[in-house]
Amino acid sequence: MSYKCIYNGVVLTMNASGEIIENGAVVIEGARIVALGNEALMGGYEFEEMIDARGGIIMPGFINGHGHVSMSVFRTLGEDVPNRLQRFLFPLEDRLICENYVRKGAMLGIAEMILGGVTTFVDMYYFEDEVAKAAKEMGMRAIVGETIIDRIAPDAQLPYEGIMHAKALIEKWRGDDLITPALAPHATYSNDEAHLKEICEISKELDVPVLMHVSEMAYEISKFREVYQLSPVQYLDHIGVLNNKLIAAHVVYADEADFALLAKHDVGVVHCVAANAKSGRPVSPVNEMLKRGVKVGLGTDGPMSGNTLDVIGLLDQVAKVQKINEKDNTVLTAREVVEMGTILGAKAIHMDAKVGSLEVGKLADVIIIDTIAPHLQPIYDYYSALVYGAYPQDVVFSMIHGKTVMQDRKLLTGDLPQIIKAVQKISKKIKAEMVEM
Amino acid sequence: MSYKCIYNGVVLTMNASGEIIENGAVVIEGARIVALGNEALMGGYEFEEMIDARGGIIMPGFINGHGHVSMSVFRTLGEDVPNRLQRFLFPLEDRLICENYVRKGAMLGIAEMILGGVTTFVDMYYFEDEVAKAAKEMGMRAIVGETIIDRIAPDAQLPYEGIMHAKALIEKWRGDDLITPALAPHATYSNDEAHLKEICEISKELDVPVLMHVSEMAYEISKFREVYQLSPVQYLDHIGVLNNKLIAAHVVYADEADFALLAKHDVGVVHCVAANAKSGRPVSPVNEMLKRGVKVGLGTDGPMSGNTLDVIGLLDQVAKVQKINEKDNTVLTAREVVEMGTILGAKAIHMDAKVGSLEVGKLADVIIIDTIAPHLQPIYDYYSALVYGAYPQDVVFSMIHGKTVMQDRKLLTGDLPQIIKAVQKISKKIKAEMVEM
Repeated sequence: MSYKCIYNGVVLTMNASGEIIENGAVVIEGARIVALGNEALMGGYEFEEMIDARGGIIMPGFINGHGHVSMSVFRTLGEDVPNRLQRFLFPLEDRLICENYVRKGAMLGIAEMILGGVTTFVDMYYFEDEVAKAAKEMGMRAIVGETIIDRIAPDAQLPYEGIMHAKALIEKWRGDDLITPALAPHATYSNDEAHLKEICEISKELDVPVLMHVSEMAYEISKFREVYQLSPVQYLDHIGVLNNKLIAAHVVYADEADFALLAKHDVGVVHCVAANAKSGRPVSPVNEMLKRGVKVGLGTDGPMSGNTLDVIGLLDQVAKVQKINEKDNTVLTAREVVEMGTILGAKAIHMDAKVGSLEVGKLADVIIIDTIAPHLQPIYDYYSALVYGAYPQDVVFSMIHGKTVMQDRKLLTGDLPQIIKAVQKISKKIKAEMVEM
Repeated sequence: MSYKCIYNGVVLTMNASGEIIENGAVVIEGARIVALGNEALMGGYEFEEMIDARGGIIMPGFINGHGHVSMSVFRTLGEDVPNRLQRFLFPLEDRLICENYVRKGAMLGIAEMILGGVTTFVDMYYFEDEVAKAAKEMGMRAIVGETIIDRIAPDAQLPYEGIMHAKALIEKWRGDDLITPALAPHATYSNDEAHLKEICEISKELDVPVLMHVSEMAYEISKFREVYQLSPVQYLDHIGVLNNKLIAAHVVYADEADFALLAKHDVGVVHCVAANAKSGRPVSPVNEMLKRGVKVGLGTDGPMSGNTLDVIGLLDQVAKVQKINEKDNTVLTAREVVEMGTILGAKAIHMDAKVGSLEVGKLADVIIIDTIAPHLQPIYDYYSALVYGAYPQDVVFSMIHGKTVMQDRKLLTGDLPQIIKAVQKISKKIKAEMVEM
């Protein structure tokens, strides 16, 4: 047997009892955690590799529960303009998005996420196989959903053609140890009832997740209210597609009846605080959902909305926005917020049996946070230090599925300067196209 | 004559016309900027030092308009607890705060700020001479205000004794090229009318700023409403102490009448979005104040409230919180937000004749932001990249008053490991004291 060990740090397990182990160690065999506890347990093993956390925090990697990583190619484009999606994004996507843009954008975003301590991300876009390949090559865990929409799309000549592409994606990637393929009906309002039901059936049959934008837009709420006298969540329940395969992104607009349905059907919710705030949307009732037992994780959304793929930054934002919203500084404790980024995020994407906490038997998705920095010292409370003090740049080590993907801020699974250059080249073409618009 | 030059970058001047100079250069002689423009201008000089910005952003350093930097020793203490100030902070301050704590805490905070691109900070606390000395030693520009309060304080055996200490501080530091001494009456509700008037007279006579917490607390608003039938701002106007020496921190609660008074009397306002949000306070009407011509800058507040001293992080927060508050994504453009952190922040602390923008004749407080990073590429809009994408760690160079204080993320004016160790030692004592409480 060959064992690895991460030691000399404070282990934030994020397990159910919130155990914190000072002078802790995590023992890894292959892709799994086989032991963790006080450093004393290290005496029982011979290690092929020992990773010194140098007094930092050893914790599970962060879960980015919703995004469109390849949209990094559009980052900072058309800011501060009303209808920026209609005016800039959709026309540019129609004219330009291709396999190459999706692949290069995904590589940039995955690099950013690995450097920021994200070890699992959930993505939905076009040409999604390119995202899957990029993630696989870079050693990143991902749920990748091919977009299904009721109109022509960059990779679809016909409405709902995405179902066919999604099936091919699932066929190709099912059973992979890093990549989980998925169906991604774009939104409640851009897929009709028959197709939502069909997608639901396929997901059950093939045992894959369904990713969808739910209760995100004001016009979505108005439409469902007007046409069905139901909220979007109630409508999804009504047509029978709420279940534990569904990962619902955003859920900005929701009430008590919605909370009850989401909890009852074990739907995962991914809250995108940064993107929603920047868009001036109402505040999602996250604290209320959590109290009602809804599993709510965090997502960055795409880098044109977010604008980063930084889950550590979301911790701070969700805490502050919920405290503002409820006018109460005790709403969402720092520990609860770190849970949203880790174990609760894993529950929201229905992967908590495998990732989200450091526990024996779980996959070894582990990061180290260096705490010897002027913005992080002193520490009276580790959770608060992470939520209100830490930056992606404080992550100094990342292991995914037992493999080290970043060490001492160096990405080990991709050529970062080349990745950046490739996207800069693409951005020049986008700028040229914008001159024509 | 001996000249320095910062070149090979995009110069964000932050001047009145918002000029951006690609392939720009800034020429410095002594403490001042003597030329800036296209790199072609470099031909006219011989340089003793040339600083290569490597394609990054060259811009004025950030202004941190309000804080209590030495409170870094309490960072992450007593989080998520109601009445944390009364329960933990005030008793700990009474028992422990001394010259040594203030000095070591200040050094840690100043190190953090220099590493984060802050080149001027405004501080009010006890034993403020220690903050002044630490800033001076570390080459940092600061306005330092000795706290004046109507009760016994860590450095005052009698109420209002702070006036005496403030006079001594002013006597000692007036005319210094980095340190501006100030009077800091703690708040509208903790200084009586006679003393506020006296402080105002001293500030005019000695030509120094006055720093005060204004319209921050719900109980403050209730008190002034009940006793005087006035808002705190109206009260300050009524007693004749609103003027262009005053730097009012927070101003969370304010209405049209207050906006008009603040604008008319040229009062500087420092908005502390991070601290206010974390405290669950109402959202300050920042966008409204700006529209009415009030000069509003940004402040971190103390690191027990904030919890960092990161002005770049405030850019993102103020933009998002104002967009949420007004339910409009076009509120506060990215350019306006960067102005709040630079030239408008300088106006709010009445130092815009000297700092806040890169212009000929101004003091050379200049930073470089490295943009070749996966979270910052591509860039279609420099302001948006800074507001929504940048981190303190992207600042790779800082010059204050013509002197390089940080280069390639290395603090040049202090021994960072020693500074951190000193505060860790203090935090052990604070932890021990808490066990007794």
